[in-house]
Amino acid sequence: MYSPSIQKLIEEFSKLPGVGPRAAARFAFSLIGKKRSETDGLAQAIINVKKNVKCCRLCFNVYESDLEICGICSDARRDNGLLCVVANETDLATIDKTGAYKGRYFVLGSPLSSLRRHPADTARLSELEKRARQNKALKEIILAINPTPDGQAAILYLERMLKPSGVKITRLGLGLPFGGELEYADEETLQSALRGRQ
Amino acid sequence: MYSPSIQKLIEEFSKLPGVGPRAAARFAFSLIGKKRSETDGLAQAIINVKKNVKCCRLCFNVYESDLEICGICSDARRDNGLLCVVANETDLATIDKTGAYKGRYFVLGSPLSSLRRHPADTARLSELEKRARQNKALKEIILAINPTPDGQAAILYLERMLKPSGVKITRLGLGLPFGGELEYADEETLQSALRGRQ
Repeated sequence: MYSPSIQKLIEEFSKLPGVGPRAAARFAFSLIGKKRSETDGLAQAIINVKKNVKCCRLCFNVYESDLEICGICSDARRDNGLLCVVANETDLATIDKTGAYKGRYFVLGSPLSSLRRHPADTARLSELEKRARQNKALKEIILAINPTPDGQAAILYLERMLKPSGVKITRLGLGLPFGGELEYADEETLQSALRGRQ
Repeated sequence: MYSPSIQKLIEEFSKLPGVGPRAAARFAFSLIGKKRSETDGLAQAIINVKKNVKCCRLCFNVYESDLEICGICSDARRDNGLLCVVANETDLATIDKTGAYKGRYFVLGSPLSSLRRHPADTARLSELEKRARQNKALKEIILAINPTPDGQAAILYLERMLKPSGVKITRLGLGLPFGGELEYADEETLQSALRGRQ
């Protein structure tokens, strides 16, 4: 089909999430059309990210610094009584950007649909369970997980797993999104908004 | 927001066609979650493609070999009387895969909407115009360009540009796609199918 180097690049691009062969070919040819200095930028950024980015052994978020743990975990002003459990690093960044939360985090780091299936996930889950049991400072665990079907299943599973620890378990409030319109809200959202009326 | 290496990688991914900041972040974190050996594969493929792939000075298609010109242009069995003008390398590959065409190619190599606007495109257009005038072996130029609004405009422009050369100019047949249903065909397609009845 295409020459070997192009074929290989298309294959590599196809491994990215949500990228099919046609998008991968479009990416490949866009690079071929660019200057060497520009494409080296992407290649170097990939190499650098693997070289510099570490996984925090406390919250499992990504970070880069010479410290042993990440910036959030080493920040003494943060509340040790609150632990926010998120599915992945982007969700953590989204929540932290709001500035509304000043506690600690815990990244589950795998697709919600496969939480219990893979051994690597089980390791993080047991770690979370252990912390809920052993960390006496902990007052509340917030399950900040997408209210999707997979997320709901994960929330139920986590609630059941964490209940014996005696720590208070909460989840994010459901209701109308700010700026949303009643007319376009689905039934589930509207029911949640009614139940959660303030 | 994210740490510098991650931010940089997201920026680089955002430069790919059709990739917004959210998709770019998804790509970045998928690489962070992979083994070094796997991500090096992508970085190396990007570097290799720029090192190995050349642009044929005859048809402007991409190729990789030690030859001076590409495999199609150096193939003596191909018909020198036919020249197929395509928008880009993927269209060329798509046409050549059918095996229905055994002539030569000419890659315009830029978005159809901007054919006349950028100087680099003008260079290829003048080259095409010169070949149509000077290549006495040439009997037909096929404008194998998408029948989209931008493509139609490009076809009209090329027809006008190439007409003085006296070479026969054709475009791809329009009609129902194989396996298509009358009921779902748009009006333009149906009109073309009626005009082109065999």
